[in-house]
Amino acid sequence: MAKKYSIGIDYGTLSGRAVLVEVDTGNIAATAVKEYTHAVMDEFLPDGKTKLESDWALQHPEDYLEVLKITIPAVLKESGVSPEDIIGMAIDFTACTMLPIDKSGMPLCMKDEYKLEPHAYVKLWKHHAAQYEANKLNELAEARGERFLSRYGGKISSEWLFPKIMQILDEAPQIYDAADRFIEATDWVTLMLTGNERRNSCTAGYKAIWNKREGYPSREFFKALDPRLENVVEAKLSNDIYPLGGKAGELTDEMAKLTGLKPGTAVGIANVDAHVAVPSVGITDVGKMLMIMGTSTCHMVLGNEEKIVPGMCGVVEDGILPGFYGFEAGQSCVGDHFQWFVENCVPATYTEEAKSRGISIHKLLREKATRLKVGESGLVALDWWNGNRSVLVDVDLTGLIIGCTLLTKPEEIYRALIEATAYGTNMIIETFEENGVKIDELFACGGIAEKDEMMMQIYADVTNREIRISNSPQAVALGSAMFGAVAAGKEKGGYDSIFEAAGKMSKVKEAYYKPNPANVEAYRKLYAEYKLLHDYFGRGENDVMKRLKRIKSEARNEG
Amino acid sequence: MAKKYSIGIDYGTLSGRAVLVEVDTGNIAATAVKEYTHAVMDEFLPDGKTKLESDWALQHPEDYLEVLKITIPAVLKESGVSPEDIIGMAIDFTACTMLPIDKSGMPLCMKDEYKLEPHAYVKLWKHHAAQYEANKLNELAEARGERFLSRYGGKISSEWLFPKIMQILDEAPQIYDAADRFIEATDWVTLMLTGNERRNSCTAGYKAIWNKREGYPSREFFKALDPRLENVVEAKLSNDIYPLGGKAGELTDEMAKLTGLKPGTAVGIANVDAHVAVPSVGITDVGKMLMIMGTSTCHMVLGNEEKIVPGMCGVVEDGILPGFYGFEAGQSCVGDHFQWFVENCVPATYTEEAKSRGISIHKLLREKATRLKVGESGLVALDWWNGNRSVLVDVDLTGLIIGCTLLTKPEEIYRALIEATAYGTNMIIETFEENGVKIDELFACGGIAEKDEMMMQIYADVTNREIRISNSPQAVALGSAMFGAVAAGKEKGGYDSIFEAAGKMSKVKEAYYKPNPANVEAYRKLYAEYKLLHDYFGRGENDVMKRLKRIKSEARNEG
Repeated sequence: MAKKYSIGIDYGTLSGRAVLVEVDTGNIAATAVKEYTHAVMDEFLPDGKTKLESDWALQHPEDYLEVLKITIPAVLKESGVSPEDIIGMAIDFTACTMLPIDKSGMPLCMKDEYKLEPHAYVKLWKHHAAQYEANKLNELAEARGERFLSRYGGKISSEWLFPKIMQILDEAPQIYDAADRFIEATDWVTLMLTGNERRNSCTAGYKAIWNKREGYPSREFFKALDPRLENVVEAKLSNDIYPLGGKAGELTDEMAKLTGLKPGTAVGIANVDAHVAVPSVGITDVGKMLMIMGTSTCHMVLGNEEKIVPGMCGVVEDGILPGFYGFEAGQSCVGDHFQWFVENCVPATYTEEAKSRGISIHKLLREKATRLKVGESGLVALDWWNGNRSVLVDVDLTGLIIGCTLLTKPEEIYRALIEATAYGTNMIIETFEENGVKIDELFACGGIAEKDEMMMQIYADVTNREIRISNSPQAVALGSAMFGAVAAGKEKGGYDSIFEAAGKMSKVKEAYYKPNPANVEAYRKLYAEYKLLHDYFGRGENDVMKRLKRIKSEARNEG
Repeated sequence: MAKKYSIGIDYGTLSGRAVLVEVDTGNIAATAVKEYTHAVMDEFLPDGKTKLESDWALQHPEDYLEVLKITIPAVLKESGVSPEDIIGMAIDFTACTMLPIDKSGMPLCMKDEYKLEPHAYVKLWKHHAAQYEANKLNELAEARGERFLSRYGGKISSEWLFPKIMQILDEAPQIYDAADRFIEATDWVTLMLTGNERRNSCTAGYKAIWNKREGYPSREFFKALDPRLENVVEAKLSNDIYPLGGKAGELTDEMAKLTGLKPGTAVGIANVDAHVAVPSVGITDVGKMLMIMGTSTCHMVLGNEEKIVPGMCGVVEDGILPGFYGFEAGQSCVGDHFQWFVENCVPATYTEEAKSRGISIHKLLREKATRLKVGESGLVALDWWNGNRSVLVDVDLTGLIIGCTLLTKPEEIYRALIEATAYGTNMIIETFEENGVKIDELFACGGIAEKDEMMMQIYADVTNREIRISNSPQAVALGSAMFGAVAAGKEKGGYDSIFEAAGKMSKVKEAYYKPNPANVEAYRKLYAEYKLLHDYFGRGENDVMKRLKRIKSEARNEG
């Protein structure tokens, strides 16, 4: 029998990529990337005239189809693999990235009558303009003692589905009315591929307050929120939620023509980018936390029981792997943090040094920062440049650095920012363990995990845990390819379960990071300082960060 | 009668300058500067081999004489003024800048047998290696309930005379023994000029714990500190202290030859750079605070009564102007702060923009920062990059910045650092007023005061006070020239008192900064946040800054 392949398609914030993977090994045969034509729209609609308000972030659904049209033929061509041998595919996406569609599944923004209407477009995960609605939802849920809140660390994020729907209803009721349904982009693309609407349990659970046992929040709750929302689930969503690891359907003729694949190719239930990476590093049991490290970090860990962990992003039964409770936590500012630093705080002398030596500024900073001993800078930072997403769940928290002197060097600040993100991760781990979710070992994937040895050693030292690193250059897309192989099933040359697929296709490096005992001890002291500041500024003892944000927004609005 | 002139000589940290001034107007006829040949020695002695420990800062007394030899002939030449018409001169200096001399007045470091002995040299004001001794002195003074402590904000600085003498005794008892006297450099240069040792009341009061009514600390105190110190005052210093505004003597023949001035030219009692600037802006009464703004800021204000103000640097009767109590406070990090920022935190893109527009990076940053509205950055900083010199008097405090986001721009941080120094000044003003020293109006001199309009407006807005700016390019040296004219006296064409001299010679600009009511109101809120953080981190609620410093020094010592 010829070698079999599966395609994973990973939809990121700025581009989508297709990865063609050998089903028996997980090795990558080809990769292709397509930058979204419209990128992220945060100032104007595609007409270049209709202005968006601040904190908006939209996308165009045509871009998602373009990814299919360009990247799949590209991987076919590059690899020379016959479409016959491609047994399955699946996609993953950023989330909650949602859009309103009509009865036929067409996005409202692709219809002439709505194309100048911002609310008709895809709201990207980082559309942050529904904070008012999120606050309203949270206040009501808290007042009513809604149990679901505790499954989301006590707060529903403004990034998630219902605040985004509420914003549409508040600001563009005509779009709310015109929408036959609201749907996650990941489910919409799968609908386009297969003709079947098969909403996945991951986004439903993590982003839409859905629970396998209890369903969505009650009609009473929605009615109290806004009488027009009483029937939102039945009218605008769906109660049919499909577990991960299943098959959504088969590739339609039309999509086969678009992509060059065979009609009937199995398509897996869609998933979320971070979640799909868990089996791709071979995690199929409890006690192992995966950190997906990029501009931000997602933390994923499996458990056998539902535990309520303060500030987690969510606990969802079958939300990561079937049969487990999937726990998610997150840090909202990791790679972004260092990028901000490099763009705003690195002096010209350093830029020149990097240039003259032909290395990146990150590499130069790492080189200098690596030479520092733990604690030598005297600096501690709070990693809240983009708010705090886990444990405290508070977007209005801001960054802090303490311990500066006239001898403080850029590499010391750089290292302090890296350490701050490690402390943030340790805070998440501690909080999980204190609440009954054990974490013995860490795994990491993403660009930072693969490239930044200093950072990963700092993480091992701060958390006092071994860290294993993904060995696939495309850990996320590999996870989707695994789900594609499972959708195809064993008889087609795939697998019958994601556990089986993980056993064969997952990739982790042999070498791993081990904590250095002397550094562990030194970081224990620094972490204690972080924690003290974390609690003082984060738990209401001194709300200066929020007051400054208020002063700031008043100052901006004045002008 | 020909126009009369006076010379003020200002000895700074890196250079000395002579300024020739018209006695009737205060206008400058000529200026000359000499950089010290040995600059600040903080790594090696002049032999280039004898290594100094960290925190040391020495100078060479020959450099001070070189200033006289080079700058005075230079101003004579430049102005064409006849030495006959130069009726007086006086000097001012950094302080406490002290040295051991032999019986003849020769500095020990200029004697062959001691020239490889670090402790034989001038200890510059910023020699910070006597902290151990300062701590010991402070602890003992506190334990014994010594009243003098309260006149110095509760703490004697390691920069001052007795800790420096104690360090010599501890580390080089042979130098202590060999020293006939220890003397302030300002008094030593005056001794060289006149042959008379006339120790001034300003350095004695502010730097040597001398009080007009109570004298130095008691023999019992010194004995308890170290039995060898029991007679330190009688044996190594002097009880003869001369008030400011008097005449130290007349120029010797030898010095007349060296400088080109006439023998017999009147020389005023020496003074300190910051203090001498007070009459030069025309302050001759209570309620007006002068800020001398440079790398650090000194705050000077007169009062009619002795008041005990927490954390002030000192209150000295006759310490600034005869007949008044002179109060001094200080901020240890002002210009230094911005310089640190420019060297370490300004991105290459900004450096290039400044370069391509042919402006300084400070100017570019100011231009961008000026456009910001009060509070718009959302940032607040604590200005403790170099510790806190006033109110808290704690060198182990460090800098903090809070409110950072991924959109924070360099100019926002820059402005926040400037604002932090303004809050620090306001904290000093508030503390004075709360303790009975009124401050109605501000005056400022120094490079920053003259050049940085944005900063001065911020100071006016934060302090809600008008600020008048010195109108002499050499406000400090002008002050010394005024004291020179007073030393000469009216019959020689000078003045009989510094008040009279100030009435004629002082210089202040017509235009002044007025608080903008809207900004005052906005800053009131931001200052409240500064104060909360100031007290939390500065008054022992969370000693994280000190713990981090300890961790830092442990980490450094390990290697």
